[in-house]
Amino acid sequence: MNSQFLAELASELEQRKSANAADSYVASLYKRGTDTILQKVGEEAIETIIAVKSGVKQDIISETADLWFHTLVMLAEQGLGPADVLAELERRVGTSGHDEKASRQSN
Amino acid sequence: MNSQFLAELASELEQRKSANAADSYVASLYKRGTDTILQKVGEEAIETIIAVKSGVKQDIISETADLWFHTLVMLAEQGLGPADVLAELERRVGTSGHDEKASRQSN
Amino acid sequence: MNSQFLAELASELEQRKSANAADSYVASLYKRGTDTILQKVGEEAIETIIAVKSGVKQDIISETADLWFHTLVMLAEQGLGPADVLAELERRVGTSGHDEKASRQSN
Amino acid sequence: MNSQFLAELASELEQRKSANAADSYVASLYKRGTDTILQKVGEEAIETIIAVKSGVKQDIISETADLWFHTLVMLAEQGLGPADVLAELERRVGTSGHDEKASRQSN
Repeated sequence: MNSQFLAELASELEQRKSANAADSYVASLYKRGTDTILQKVGEEAIETIIAVKSGVKQDIISETADLWFHTLVMLAEQGLGPADVLAELERRVGTSGHDEKASRQSN
Repeated sequence: MNSQFLAELASELEQRKSANAADSYVASLYKRGTDTILQKVGEEAIETIIAVKSGVKQDIISETADLWFHTLVMLAEQGLGPADVLAELERRVGTSGHDEKASRQSN
Repeated sequence: MNSQFLAELASELEQRKSANAADSYVASLYKRGTDTILQKVGEEAIETIIAVKSGVKQDIISETADLWFHTLVMLAEQGLGPADVLAELERRVGTSGHDEKASRQSN
Repeated sequence: MNSQFLAELASELEQRKSANAADSYVASLYKRGTDTILQKVGEEAIETIIAVKSGVKQDIISETADLWFHTLVMLAEQGLGPADVLAELERRVGTSGHDEKASRQSN
């Protein structure tokens, strides 16, 4: 795994904002707008859940990849990126090493 | 952002498998089982969507962190990890640089 | 099945708008607001999906009941009711008897 | 509102089990199988949530109609029907008139 991969992918998603919607799936999502992107996030979450219940490992990986991909598109469309989310996760587990406590407080 | 962070977090989630459910939120999720973990993944996806529609940036970051966190717990519970998902994403964008084409094929 | 049941239930949900949140689950949902009600709708949809994948008939019935119940609460909170939704469904299947065609157009 | 409408619609969905998938949207859902039907239930729940957050009344009605319609298809595919779900709802609110208490127990 290329450790810089998420940052590179985010940079690529950013560049797609100036791409032609006819040539680029991501550009077509931006053009269709926030609700379409949110529908995709929701659909991929549902498909991830169905994949886990079906118990096929490759489908779980593939659907989770779809879910993460579309959350990255959503973040880019909102002017955010994976660094914001990872910093938040890191902040929670950071000083104490107790991911659980931090996570529970947020729910 | 610590570039090794996702791998470290996954390693920590793995170690929680032997923790006491009374002391650890993640261990309590493992104990309650797959359906509970999937419910959490679904709930956090819904809350992410609601946060985006509400337009509060910090909530978007926080809910997306919750969503990613619980997908990481799901992956660990299924014997998988972020490296599997990132490798899949990297494979899609890899040779061609066309993330869009690869992603569209998977939908 | 009492054919007037949905209308009666909607009327009861309407009356809960003036109930005390400490005494009434539905009143507590109204008090917590739209986002909480939408989270419940989303959670029950997820739990319905998980129940179907698990294949336990009684759970499917119970989770679908939860899902419909919380959509009724959502409708009431939005100043709508089951009559609006049933009229829409009836309009689609109405003149032609082709529920499919009408439904497909809406997707 | 025709009070027998849900029963009639369920009967029609039942008949679609012997229809040609090329001619009937519902028959095509049956043919594609349980996972596709569950994806539709999930998608329509997400779209209902987005519609409420967008605040357009007609969209809320339309998306809720889609959600209920696809749960009816799911019930039919599982050998169940709206009578099962309404009986469950009626059982909860029945003797006491306290829909809230019954509902809270189920969550």
